[in-house]
Amino acid sequence: MRSLATASDAGSEMPYIDLDAYLGEGGGARGRIIAAAARLFRERGYQQVTMQDVAGAIGLSKAGLYHHCPSKDLILADIVGLCGQILTRQLQTASEAEGTPLGRLQRFVVTRMETIAQYQDFFTIVYQERPYLGTSTFGSIAKSAEVYRAGVRDLIEDCKACGQLRADIDAHLMMLAIDGMTGWAYVWFRDDGTQNPTRIGESFWSFLMNGVHPVEPLVAGRDRPRRNSE
Amino acid sequence: MRSLATASDAGSEMPYIDLDAYLGEGGGARGRIIAAAARLFRERGYQQVTMQDVAGAIGLSKAGLYHHCPSKDLILADIVGLCGQILTRQLQTASEAEGTPLGRLQRFVVTRMETIAQYQDFFTIVYQERPYLGTSTFGSIAKSAEVYRAGVRDLIEDCKACGQLRADIDAHLMMLAIDGMTGWAYVWFRDDGTQNPTRIGESFWSFLMNGVHPVEPLVAGRDRPRRNSE
Repeated sequence: MRSLATASDAGSEMPYIDLDAYLGEGGGARGRIIAAAARLFRERGYQQVTMQDVAGAIGLSKAGLYHHCPSKDLILADIVGLCGQILTRQLQTASEAEGTPLGRLQRFVVTRMETIAQYQDFFTIVYQERPYLGTSTFGSIAKSAEVYRAGVRDLIEDCKACGQLRADIDAHLMMLAIDGMTGWAYVWFRDDGTQNPTRIGESFWSFLMNGVHPVEPLVAGRDRPRRNSE
Repeated sequence: MRSLATASDAGSEMPYIDLDAYLGEGGGARGRIIAAAARLFRERGYQQVTMQDVAGAIGLSKAGLYHHCPSKDLILADIVGLCGQILTRQLQTASEAEGTPLGRLQRFVVTRMETIAQYQDFFTIVYQERPYLGTSTFGSIAKSAEVYRAGVRDLIEDCKACGQLRADIDAHLMMLAIDGMTGWAYVWFRDDGTQNPTRIGESFWSFLMNGVHPVEPLVAGRDRPRRNSE
């Protein structure tokens, strides 16, 4: 991935596809190529997949594929770039939502679970291909991951500041707990319609908010757990 | 990994190194080779590492290395086999501990966090090399993972049965939440002495047990959260 790292280091124009371009009209030919390649990279590993495999998966000739995508590394670069944009937008949407800080944090947890499930191929590749992505590229991934994590800590601190979370909560560890319980879905989520990411995200949120000890569940209109009388 | 899969499928003697052999006296030469190779595989990716690299990392000649380990695939097989044994023992130790079901579940959460941190190289490799490990080998990993997850669900159900966890908790989703918040550490844990896996595991346990809502923390000698008077 030397070429990628160099382009990025030189501060030249980002070679990655824009998220809105990807999402619009199925991303066009480039979007279809990225989605098909991502499935193959996830299943077989990036290095085992040839451009011929990618072309075959979407019914293009190899020449037709090269017309849209000059190299396999650039497809991988698109995937890495999209992952960053997807998570940035997911955090931003939750952070700017109307309502209370706790409502925004809840929205963040649930939409993160939905996002990991929706783009499971992409996120799996970023974790699987970490050694291949190389130090420079992974350094840039790590940098944007750190911005994301700082944003999550801010959401948590906002809740603490207005008394919606316990003051003794370590925001960094709570961020890691949320990150992990939702992010780990890249390993176990089955995209066969049997699992509902929204419901799973809401359950995870409920575990964290109410605790799993025997207390009555939250009553609508209240914002604190009510204990059983002992 | 065709050879591995075949050996396993045929029900022949497990080619993996035994965990006690690995742990005893630093595992001897084979143990030192495994540990050094694991670090290289994790950093550079399995396929980029040569037997020459492994030999160099522990000051052996290539011939000396081949004397102990006939192939790179067998080192990877040892790592995969050790991961399974390590997690099985971690679950078993927690499940058989004295005390209450809730105490056993707490022990499971904390020791899982410690275990992932301690063997971070091994676990990273299993996730990174998933496509390379191949369908047969990964099928056998998935099978032992399913046994492990069933054991965790049992721990949770035991707590529910004696009223130590809320009856409405979905044991499968709670298992996934625990699995994820601790397992994700393979990505973020830094083995530089700045992070304490035991303390992190205890914090994660506290988030789950008490919830992060504003209630007083557990008082020593009590087993339920005490709410602030409103």
